[in-house]
Amino acid sequence: MTIEDWRAEIDAIDDELLRLLNARAALAIRVGESKRSVGLSVRDGEREREVIERVRRANTGPLDDRAVARLFRRIILESRRAETVALEETGTLAEGALR
Amino acid sequence: MTIEDWRAEIDAIDDELLRLLNARAALAIRVGESKRSVGLSVRDGEREREVIERVRRANTGPLDDRAVARLFRRIILESRRAETVALEETGTLAEGALR
Repeated sequence: MTIEDWRAEIDAIDDELLRLLNARAALAIRVGESKRSVGLSVRDGEREREVIERVRRANTGPLDDRAVARLFRRIILESRRAETVALEETGTLAEGALR
Repeated sequence: MTIEDWRAEIDAIDDELLRLLNARAALAIRVGESKRSVGLSVRDGEREREVIERVRRANTGPLDDRAVARLFRRIILESRRAETVALEETGTLAEGALR
Protein backbone atom coordinates (compact mmCIF):
# COMPACT_ATOMS: atom_id res chain seq x y z
CA MET A 1 0.00 0.00 0.00
CA THR A 2 1.28 3.47 -0.86
CA ILE A 3 0.49 6.79 0.86
CA GLU A 4 -1.93 7.48 -2.01
CA ASP A 5 -3.81 4.21 -1.33
CA TRP A 6 -4.17 5.05 2.34
CA ARG A 7 -5.33 8.55 1.47
CA ALA A 8 -8.01 7.05 -0.80
CA GLU A 9 -9.14 4.93 2.18
CA ILE A 10 -9.19 8.03 4.40
CA ASP A 11 -11.30 9.84 1.76
CA ALA A 12 -13.78 6.92 1.78
CA ILE A 13 -13.98 7.10 5.60
CA ASP A 14 -14.49 10.87 5.40
CA ASP A 15 -17.44 10.40 3.02
CA GLU A 16 -19.00 8.01 5.51
CA LEU A 17 -18.23 10.34 8.45
CA LEU A 18 -19.88 13.21 6.56
CA ARG A 19 -22.98 11.11 5.89
CA LEU A 20 -23.26 10.07 9.56
CA LEU A 21 -22.60 13.58 10.89
CA ASN A 22 -25.45 14.91 8.74
CA ALA A 23 -27.73 12.00 9.76
CA ARG A 24 -26.93 12.80 13.41
CA ALA A 25 -27.74 16.49 12.91
CA ALA A 26 -31.03 15.55 11.20
CA LEU A 27 -31.98 13.39 14.21
CA ALA A 28 -30.95 16.18 16.61
CA ILE A 29 -33.28 18.52 14.71
CA ARG A 30 -36.15 16.06 15.23
CA VAL A 31 -35.34 15.74 18.92
CA GLY A 32 -35.29 19.55 19.12
CA GLU A 33 -38.70 19.77 17.48
CA SER A 34 -40.11 17.19 19.88
CA LYS A 35 -38.63 18.97 22.88
CA ARG A 36 -39.99 22.28 21.69
CA SER A 37 -43.46 20.76 21.34
CA VAL A 38 -43.40 19.81 25.03
CA GLY A 39 -41.72 23.06 26.13
CA LEU A 40 -38.24 21.70 26.94
CA SER A 41 -34.92 23.53 26.37
CA VAL A 42 -32.81 22.48 23.34
CA ARG A 43 -29.73 22.18 25.53
CA ASP A 44 -29.51 19.24 27.90
CA GLY A 45 -26.20 19.11 29.78
CA GLU A 46 -27.04 15.77 31.41
CA ARG A 47 -27.64 14.09 28.04
CA GLU A 48 -24.40 15.58 26.68
CA ARG A 49 -22.37 14.17 29.56
CA GLU A 50 -24.03 10.79 29.01
CA VAL A 51 -23.18 10.79 25.30
CA ILE A 52 -19.51 11.59 25.94
CA GLU A 53 -19.23 9.10 28.81
CA ARG A 54 -20.77 6.39 26.61
CA VAL A 55 -18.30 6.86 23.73
CA ARG A 56 -15.32 7.15 26.09
CA ARG A 57 -16.27 3.80 27.61
CA ALA A 58 -16.69 2.22 24.16
CA ASN A 59 -13.37 3.60 22.88
CA THR A 60 -10.72 1.06 21.87
CA GLY A 61 -8.18 3.50 20.33
CA PRO A 62 -5.86 4.42 18.75
CA LEU A 63 -7.53 7.74 19.62
CA ASP A 64 -7.18 8.28 23.37
CA ASP A 65 -10.20 9.01 25.57
CA ARG A 66 -9.50 12.73 25.76
CA ALA A 67 -9.34 12.95 21.96
CA VAL A 68 -12.68 11.10 21.74
CA ALA A 69 -14.23 13.50 24.28
CA ARG A 70 -12.97 16.54 22.31
CA LEU A 71 -14.30 15.11 19.04
CA PHE A 72 -17.73 14.33 20.46
CA ARG A 73 -18.01 17.71 22.20
CA ARG A 74 -17.52 19.27 18.75
CA ILE A 75 -20.01 16.84 17.17
CA ILE A 76 -22.63 17.59 19.85
CA LEU A 77 -22.03 21.34 19.50
CA GLU A 78 -22.55 21.26 15.73
CA SER A 79 -25.63 19.04 16.04
CA ARG A 80 -27.07 21.52 18.53
CA ARG A 81 -26.25 24.46 16.25
CA ALA A 82 -28.09 22.75 13.38
CA GLU A 83 -31.00 22.12 15.76
CA THR A 84 -31.10 25.79 16.83
CA VAL A 85 -30.90 27.04 13.22
CA ALA A 86 -33.72 24.69 12.17
CA LEU A 87 -35.94 25.85 15.04
CA GLU A 88 -35.23 29.51 14.22
CA GLU A 89 -36.16 28.86 10.60
CA THR A 90 -39.55 27.51 11.62
CA GLY A 91 -39.99 30.79 13.52
CA THR A 92 -41.07 29.02 16.66
CA LEU A 93 -37.97 29.04 18.82
CA ALA A 94 -39.14 28.59 22.40
CA GLU A 95 -37.93 31.16 24.87
CA GLY A 96 -34.86 29.97 26.76
CA ALA A 97 -34.06 27.31 24.18
CA LEU A 98 -30.77 29.01 23.31
CA ARG A 99 -29.48 28.84 26.88
CA MET B 1 -41.10 7.86 17.38
CA THR B 2 -40.35 9.29 20.80
CA ILE B 3 -37.34 11.35 21.92
CA GLU B 4 -35.94 8.16 23.46
CA ASP B 5 -36.19 6.31 20.12
CA TRP B 6 -34.31 9.10 18.35
CA ARG B 7 -31.68 9.13 21.06
CA ALA B 8 -31.18 5.40 20.58
CA GLU B 9 -30.64 6.10 16.87
CA ILE B 10 -28.16 8.86 17.73
CA ASP B 11 -26.31 6.42 20.04
CA ALA B 12 -26.06 3.90 17.18
CA ILE B 13 -24.68 6.64 14.88
CA ASP B 14 -22.18 7.65 17.60
CA ASP B 15 -20.91 4.04 17.83
CA GLU B 16 -20.34 4.06 14.10
CA LEU B 17 -18.70 7.51 14.20
CA LEU B 18 -16.37 6.30 16.96
CA ARG B 19 -15.41 3.23 14.92
CA LEU B 20 -14.69 5.33 11.81
CA LEU B 21 -12.78 8.03 13.73
CA ASN B 22 -10.49 5.35 15.17
CA ALA B 23 -10.12 3.68 11.76
CA ARG B 24 -9.18 7.08 10.31
CA ALA B 25 -6.60 7.67 13.05
CA ALA B 26 -5.12 4.19 12.43
CA LEU B 27 -4.73 5.01 8.71
CA ALA B 28 -3.21 8.41 9.55
CA ILE B 29 -0.65 6.60 11.74
CA ARG B 30 0.29 4.39 8.77
CA VAL B 31 0.58 7.41 6.49
CA GLY B 32 2.80 9.05 9.16
CA GLU B 33 5.05 5.99 9.29
CA SER B 34 5.36 5.94 5.51
CA LYS B 35 6.14 9.65 5.39
CA ARG B 36 8.73 9.26 8.13
CA SER B 37 10.39 6.45 6.20
CA VAL B 38 10.91 8.79 3.24
CA GLY B 39 11.82 11.80 5.43
CA LEU B 40 8.62 13.85 4.98
CA SER B 41 6.98 16.02 7.69
CA VAL B 42 3.84 14.64 9.40
CA ARG B 43 1.99 17.88 8.78
CA ASP B 44 0.84 18.60 5.24
CA GLY B 45 -1.20 21.81 4.97
CA GLU B 46 -1.99 21.23 1.30
CA ARG B 47 -3.49 17.79 1.98
CA GLU B 48 -5.53 19.22 4.89
CA ARG B 49 -7.02 21.94 2.69
CA GLU B 50 -7.86 19.31 0.06
CA VAL B 51 -9.62 17.09 2.62
CA ILE B 52 -11.77 19.98 3.90
CA GLU B 53 -12.55 21.26 0.41
CA ARG B 54 -13.59 17.75 -0.66
CA VAL B 55 -16.08 17.25 2.20
CA ARG B 56 -17.47 20.78 1.83
CA ARG B 57 -18.19 20.05 -1.83
CA ALA B 58 -19.81 16.71 -0.95
CA ASN B 59 -21.94 18.18 1.84
CA THR B 60 -25.72 18.01 1.39
CA GLY B 61 -26.72 19.27 4.89
CA PRO B 62 -28.46 19.80 7.26
CA LEU B 63 -25.00 20.76 8.61
CA ASP B 64 -23.86 23.89 6.79
CA ASP B 65 -20.48 24.02 5.04
CA ARG B 66 -18.83 25.99 7.84
CA ALA B 67 -19.95 23.41 10.41
CA VAL B 68 -18.53 20.64 8.19
CA ALA B 69 -15.22 22.52 7.90
CA ARG B 70 -15.04 22.97 11.70
CA LEU B 71 -15.81 19.29 12.30
CA PHE B 72 -13.20 18.05 9.83
CA ARG B 73 -10.55 20.46 11.11
CA ARG B 74 -11.06 18.82 14.53
CA ILE B 75 -11.04 15.31 12.99
CA ILE B 76 -7.79 16.05 11.09
CA LEU B 77 -6.21 17.58 14.21
CA GLU B 78 -6.99 14.51 16.34
CA SER B 79 -5.81 12.12 13.59
CA ARG B 80 -2.55 14.07 13.41
CA ARG B 81 -2.17 14.01 17.21
CA ALA B 82 -2.60 10.21 17.20
CA GLU B 83 -0.02 10.05 14.38
CA THR B 84 2.47 12.16 16.33
CA VAL B 85 1.97 10.14 19.55
CA ALA B 86 2.46 6.87 17.63
CA LEU B 87 5.68 8.14 16.03
CA GLU B 88 6.96 9.36 19.39
CA GLU B 89 6.24 5.95 20.89
CA THR B 90 8.36 4.25 18.25
CA GLY B 91 11.13 6.62 19.37
CA THR B 92 11.93 7.61 15.83
CA LEU B 93 10.17 10.91 15.42
CA ALA B 94 11.85 12.66 12.52
CA GLU B 95 13.11 16.12 13.22
CA GLY B 96 10.65 18.79 12.12
CA ALA B 97 7.75 16.36 12.06
CA LEU B 98 5.99 18.26 14.87
CA ARG B 99 5.94 21.57 12.99
